[in-house]
Amino acid sequence: MVDGIEGFLIDLDGTVYRGNRLIDGAADAIRLLEREGKRFVFVSNRGNLSRAMCRDKLARMGLEVPAESILLTSTVTGMYLRDRHPGCRVWVLGEEGLTRELASFGIPHASRPEDADWLVITLHETVTYRDLNLAFRAVRGGARIIATNADRMVPTEEGDCLDVAGMIGAIAYSTGKEPEVVVGKPSAIMAETALRLIGLPPGKCMVIGDSLGSDIAMAGRGGMASALVLTGSATRQDADQGEYRPDVVWDSIADLMKVWK
Amino acid sequence: MVDGIEGFLIDLDGTVYRGNRLIDGAADAIRLLEREGKRFVFVSNRGNLSRAMCRDKLARMGLEVPAESILLTSTVTGMYLRDRHPGCRVWVLGEEGLTRELASFGIPHASRPEDADWLVITLHETVTYRDLNLAFRAVRGGARIIATNADRMVPTEEGDCLDVAGMIGAIAYSTGKEPEVVVGKPSAIMAETALRLIGLPPGKCMVIGDSLGSDIAMAGRGGMASALVLTGSATRQDADQGEYRPDVVWDSIADLMKVWK
Repeated sequence: MVDGIEGFLIDLDGTVYRGNRLIDGAADAIRLLEREGKRFVFVSNRGNLSRAMCRDKLARMGLEVPAESILLTSTVTGMYLRDRHPGCRVWVLGEEGLTRELASFGIPHASRPEDADWLVITLHETVTYRDLNLAFRAVRGGARIIATNADRMVPTEEGDCLDVAGMIGAIAYSTGKEPEVVVGKPSAIMAETALRLIGLPPGKCMVIGDSLGSDIAMAGRGGMASALVLTGSATRQDADQGEYRPDVVWDSIADLMKVWK
Repeated sequence: MVDGIEGFLIDLDGTVYRGNRLIDGAADAIRLLEREGKRFVFVSNRGNLSRAMCRDKLARMGLEVPAESILLTSTVTGMYLRDRHPGCRVWVLGEEGLTRELASFGIPHASRPEDADWLVITLHETVTYRDLNLAFRAVRGGARIIATNADRMVPTEEGDCLDVAGMIGAIAYSTGKEPEVVVGKPSAIMAETALRLIGLPPGKCMVIGDSLGSDIAMAGRGGMASALVLTGSATRQDADQGEYRPDVVWDSIADLMKVWK
């Protein structure tokens, strides 16, 4: 089922880890890909971390990978704004990780919300009314909205939790303005950036992820193979629903190890 | 312009006070209505206060009125759930004032969000991610959504701030469920409750308020006269726009005093 596959786009939340723990066998599976000489990139809709923070988080859980093999929506949002809107000033509804990642692409933060050209929204797990109100003021002052992703819920150790759709909804309902750009999976921009990074055509790549709407849809739209893992948001029953269906369903990413047995 | 008017439905935020200060002349205007033998009720989309808290707030600003002459959306939400859904359990995305007002109508609060029949949403000026996530869990667990109101912004001393539409949007976007009931102005339920309270038919009543979408629309739909005041969210130019137009535009509620000169 992975014949001819040379590269893997691997989701993180619900696929490699859940909360602050690696999925059983995930580290062994990644080590196996390295031994087999396969290329891989972690492609996550997380927009509230920088690549360096994500690398450190993985290392703390016991998986050592270089920051360059991680592609977050914070990363791709920074690339998008740098390339398509050079010189723009942003206001961030999100956490330090997003602010750092945008700064790493040289994108300036507005000093007042009213001065921002773009409001960048991501998951903000410590959001307060004040944060929402400043973002509201940015959009009322003319800022356009870009969201790192639009996921409704994020799987955590405490169960499914409110994701960035909650932050987007707070601003969209109160201002009447919707996001003009949503960067995250299943968007083409995420797929193309990942394929460029590993230097392979889509026909030689497989997406491994737990989300039908994000991972499997990105694979289907982009001409890649896909494996749905059941360690996150989807069940085996879900696999037969939705517009795009996975080529294979695995209990977890550890099933990769059966492939080369 | 107030010939034949015996009762007044008077908005609070942006009409009687703004932030923590009475609008100049507001207290004198209310005292004048009392001397003229007019009936009045304060009708506010505020859902994060109880009537007792609102009475105390007005008294601190220098306006003494009985709690019985105040009708908040927290009040009317409590009446609605008591009358239409007896025995229901609620989860509150909002502040202490709403919880108290609901308790005054004997409506029990669920011990876990998943056990709630209704999620009641109002403005929550100290909302945190945790509050939003518990509300998210209530709706995913089956709770229906009732909102005290759906105002987008509330005028304050610091400028226009994010209102309850932000709280609704956070939950609606992330769960895919919209509110089944929105209690606040311009709803018929607010108008009917207010008219019952002062015991007058709509043709003998005037709504005084700063919001075209809430106050003037409620008057227009309900067959009441209306006065738009310019101390809140609307400008004189706004008065000629929108579906419903006021019968008269006043600089402030203090203009009531010119009426009987």
